[in-house]
Amino acid sequence: MPGDVEIAQLKEHLREVDDLRSAASLLAWDQSTYMPSGGGPARGRHLATLGRLAHERLVQPDVQRLVERLARRSDELDGVDADLVRVVARDVDRATRYPSSFMAMVTEHAAASYGAWTRARQLGDFGAVAPYLERTVELSQRYAAYFPEAAHPVDPLIDAADEGMTVATVEPLFAELRAALVPLVESVADSAPRRPALPIARNDEAQLRVALQLATDLGYDLARGRQDVTAHPFAIRMAHGDVRITTRLDPGDLAEALFSTLHEAGHALYEQGVARELEATPLASGVSAGVHESQSRLWENLVGRSLPYWHYALPIVQRSFPEFKALDPERAYRGVNQVRRSLIRTEADELTYNLHVIIRFELELALLAGRLQVAELPEAWAARYQSDLGVLPEGHADGVLQDVHWFAGLVGGAFQGYAIGNVLSVQFFDAARAALPDLDAHLTGGTFEPLHGWLREHVYAHGRRLPPMTLVERVTGRPLTIEPYLAYLRGKYLGAAATLAAPA
Amino acid sequence: MPGDVEIAQLKEHLREVDDLRSAASLLAWDQSTYMPSGGGPARGRHLATLGRLAHERLVQPDVQRLVERLARRSDELDGVDADLVRVVARDVDRATRYPSSFMAMVTEHAAASYGAWTRARQLGDFGAVAPYLERTVELSQRYAAYFPEAAHPVDPLIDAADEGMTVATVEPLFAELRAALVPLVESVADSAPRRPALPIARNDEAQLRVALQLATDLGYDLARGRQDVTAHPFAIRMAHGDVRITTRLDPGDLAEALFSTLHEAGHALYEQGVARELEATPLASGVSAGVHESQSRLWENLVGRSLPYWHYALPIVQRSFPEFKALDPERAYRGVNQVRRSLIRTEADELTYNLHVIIRFELELALLAGRLQVAELPEAWAARYQSDLGVLPEGHADGVLQDVHWFAGLVGGAFQGYAIGNVLSVQFFDAARAALPDLDAHLTGGTFEPLHGWLREHVYAHGRRLPPMTLVERVTGRPLTIEPYLAYLRGKYLGAAATLAAPA
Repeated sequence: MPGDVEIAQLKEHLREVDDLRSAASLLAWDQSTYMPSGGGPARGRHLATLGRLAHERLVQPDVQRLVERLARRSDELDGVDADLVRVVARDVDRATRYPSSFMAMVTEHAAASYGAWTRARQLGDFGAVAPYLERTVELSQRYAAYFPEAAHPVDPLIDAADEGMTVATVEPLFAELRAALVPLVESVADSAPRRPALPIARNDEAQLRVALQLATDLGYDLARGRQDVTAHPFAIRMAHGDVRITTRLDPGDLAEALFSTLHEAGHALYEQGVARELEATPLASGVSAGVHESQSRLWENLVGRSLPYWHYALPIVQRSFPEFKALDPERAYRGVNQVRRSLIRTEADELTYNLHVIIRFELELALLAGRLQVAELPEAWAARYQSDLGVLPEGHADGVLQDVHWFAGLVGGAFQGYAIGNVLSVQFFDAARAALPDLDAHLTGGTFEPLHGWLREHVYAHGRRLPPMTLVERVTGRPLTIEPYLAYLRGKYLGAAATLAAPA
Repeated sequence: MPGDVEIAQLKEHLREVDDLRSAASLLAWDQSTYMPSGGGPARGRHLATLGRLAHERLVQPDVQRLVERLARRSDELDGVDADLVRVVARDVDRATRYPSSFMAMVTEHAAASYGAWTRARQLGDFGAVAPYLERTVELSQRYAAYFPEAAHPVDPLIDAADEGMTVATVEPLFAELRAALVPLVESVADSAPRRPALPIARNDEAQLRVALQLATDLGYDLARGRQDVTAHPFAIRMAHGDVRITTRLDPGDLAEALFSTLHEAGHALYEQGVARELEATPLASGVSAGVHESQSRLWENLVGRSLPYWHYALPIVQRSFPEFKALDPERAYRGVNQVRRSLIRTEADELTYNLHVIIRFELELALLAGRLQVAELPEAWAARYQSDLGVLPEGHADGVLQDVHWFAGLVGGAFQGYAIGNVLSVQFFDAARAALPDLDAHLTGGTFEPLHGWLREHVYAHGRRLPPMTLVERVTGRPLTIEPYLAYLRGKYLGAAATLAAPA
C-alpha cells in the first residue's frame, strides 16, 4: 500500500525533527538547572541553530508535498496515522508562514533576554530589561504579521498554544470569569499577609525527599524522570523515557516545595502517559497549553489541596518534619487553602489566581495592539493590581518582572492557558469522579492509580491525536464551560461545609 | 579581499557544525550525570542525529570546494585563518572518507553499548557485553577500511586522536618504555594491597568542596565550569564559557576525589585556556589526545603528587578533615605516591600506569588485526596482567570491563594517548620549570598563576593551530622523547633524595 511507504517516510523525517527538538529541550533544561553563567551566550547560539534546523526540516518542500499527498488520502490511513497527518499538516502550515531565520532570531533573542531578566529581577531593575522586552514585542508583532488572516495580533500566538481559541473567544470567557471571581474574592479573601502554610526552618534535602515521595506516589515514574531545584519550576519532556520536573524551595514554608512538585508532576504525568507508540512524532506531547495546565492544576489543587488528600499526605510530611506532629488534616487543609490578595501569581491561591492571569492577558493584548508602550507597562501593571486585587507591588521584582514568560521568547499566547487550565481541571475532575465513585476514599488512602489510570486512558495516552476542544468534549461530555469551575470554588469556599472562609 | 568573504562563509558554516557538536557534548554530559535510565534509547537516537547532521554539514560539496579554494591561497590569509583552513582541510578529508550514516550507526551503537557495559560491569558479566564489543570491533575495522592507505587498521584511529602518530611510531616507543619501566617497577613496587592515601569515613560533600577548592586554586574558572559526580570522571567542553569536570568519590579515601579532580581540572584548564577568538571553530579545542593528557597529568602528577604541593594542600585538607591533623606534608606525599602492582588503570601510580596502557594498546591492536577474538579477550587480559604486573583480576569488573573506552564507540585510538601524555607531561613541565625558576616555591605557596599562565600562553591558547608534534617541539625545544620522563621517574623513586621506595 503506497500510504504505508509514505507514512514511513514521513515518520522517519519527523523523527529527525523530534531529535533536534528533544536535544534543544535538554539544552533548555540545563540552562535553567546546571549551566554555568559563562555558558549563556554560546547556549543561545546552540539553541538557535537547533531550532532553525528543526524548522527547516519541517518546511522542506518535499515534506510539504508528502504531507499534502497523505492528507488527500487520509481515509485510507489507520487512526493514528490519519491523526498524525492532520497534526503535521497544521504544524507545517504554521511553520511555513515564517522563515527559519526568523525563529532562529527569536530563539537567540530569547536566550539573551532570559539572561538579562535573571539579572534584572535580582536587582528589581525594569529599565535594564525594557529594551529586550521592546524587541520581544516587536518580534511578536512580526510573528503575528505572518498570519494576515488573524483578527487580532495575539490570535496566532494563542492558536499556537491553544488550538481553536482566539481573543474573540477568550475575552468573553475571561470577562465572565472575572465578574464571578471578584465578588467571590471580596467575600472570602483576607488582606492580612499570608502565613506559611507549613512553616519550617530550612531543610532542603528533606523538603525535596518528601515532595518527591508525594510525586512518585501519584505515579510519577523516576526511571523515566528526575527532580531538580530551580527558581522557576517547570516540567520538560526529552522523550517518553525522560520527562523531568523541577521544584522551587522556600526555606520557610514546606508548602512551596510540595505544591510546586505536585503541579509539575501533574504536567509530567501527562507527558509520561502519552502512548509509547506515538514517540518521536509530533503527536507525542500534551495537546495544548490549557489542557496541559488542567492536569497540573488537577493534581495540585483538586487532589493536593483537598481534605481527603491531607489525610494521606500529613503523616508522610510528619515522618520527615516532626515539627508538624501536632497538626491535623483539617488544619493542614485550611493552611494550604488560605485566600489572600497577593502580588505573586505563582503563590496565589485558587480564588485569586485567575485574576493575576487575566491582568497579564489584557496587558499583553494592549502591548501587541500598540495601545500600551513597554515603558508604560509597570504603571499599567500597578493600576490593574490596585483595581483588581487591591494590592500594589513594592518593586518590579514583585511586579512586572516576576514571570519569565515575557522575557523568554514571544509576548502573547502563554497566559490564557493558565486560566483555561484552571477551568478545565474541574471539568476533567468531575468526569473522573463520575467514573470513580470511591475517589475520595482513594485519595484519603493514598491510592492514586484509579484516578491516574483514568486520566491516562482518557486524556494522556492520546497525546495530540484529538484537537483540544474535541478531547474536552469527548471526555467531559460538554464543551469548555466555566460553570463547574465556579460551582467547585463556591462549594469549597462558600458552601455549607466550607471551613475556609474562617481564619485558620 | 575575496579571501575575507570566503573565510567568513567558512566560519559561518563551521559555527553551525560546532553548534551541533556542542549540543551533542551536553547530551553526552547529561547521559553520564543526570539522565534517568529510561532516557537511554532516545538519547542514543538524538546523539546519532546530531552527529550525522554535523558530519553531513562538514562534508557538503560546496564546503569542500570552499576549503580547497582557500587552501590554494592560504599565503594570503592571516595566521589564524591559515591554520583554520589547514585544520579544516584535514578534518574534511577524514570526514569524507565515510558516509554520514556510518557515523550515526557508530554513535547509536555506542549509546547501546555504553548502557550494556554499565549493567555488565556491575554484574562482572563479560558475556552480556561481548556481542556489543564484537560489533564495535567490526565497526572499527569498517572505519579503518575507509582509509585504505593505512599500514595498520589502528592507524586511522590513532591519527584521529594523535595526529602524525602511527602503530609504526607508537610500538617502538612503548617497547622502549616497557623495557625501562619493568625493572623500575620491580625495584620499587610493593605487592601489598594499597592503603588509602588519605583514609576517611564517607563524607561526600566535604570531599567535593575540598577537591573543588584545589581545582579553583589552580585557576579552574567556575563562572565557566562546574563539578559533578560520576563513576568515571571526565572533562567536557560545551563552549569557551562552559567547560565542566566530573569527579569520582571513594567513601574511604579522599585521595580519589582530589586526584580525579586535579586530573580533570588539568583537561579543563586546557579547554578554558583556548583563546576566545577561536570559539566556534574547529581550532577551539585541545590539539590531540596525548597533549591533552599531558596537561591532566602535569597538574595531577607533576604538581599534585609533588612534595612542594603538599605543603600548600595539606592545610586545606586539614581544615575540612580534622582527622588528618597529625599528618605532615612528607607523609602525605609518600601516601599519595605509593607504588603498587594493581589491577585498575585509573588507580595506578605513576610507575605502573603505563604498563596498564601498553597492555590495552597491544590487545586492541590484536583485536583489530583479527589475531584475537572478543571471546578470548578476558584470557589474554589475564595473561598479560600476570606477566607484566604480576597480578590476576578476580572478576571481569576489575579486568576487561573496567574501562569505558571499548564500550563507547570504536576500539582503538584511545589508549596510546594516555602513555604519550605521561611522557609529554614531563617534557612540558621541564620547559615550564626552565622558564620559572621559582616554580617549587610557587607550588609550596599555592601560587599557581605563573605555571598556569605559562602553559596558557604556550600551549592552551593555541588550541589546534599547530600540529601536536610541532607544538611539542616549539614549546619544549625537542620532539617527543621519553628520556626526560624516565629521568623524572628515576629521580623521584630511586634518586638520592627519594623517600618513596621505603614503606610509608
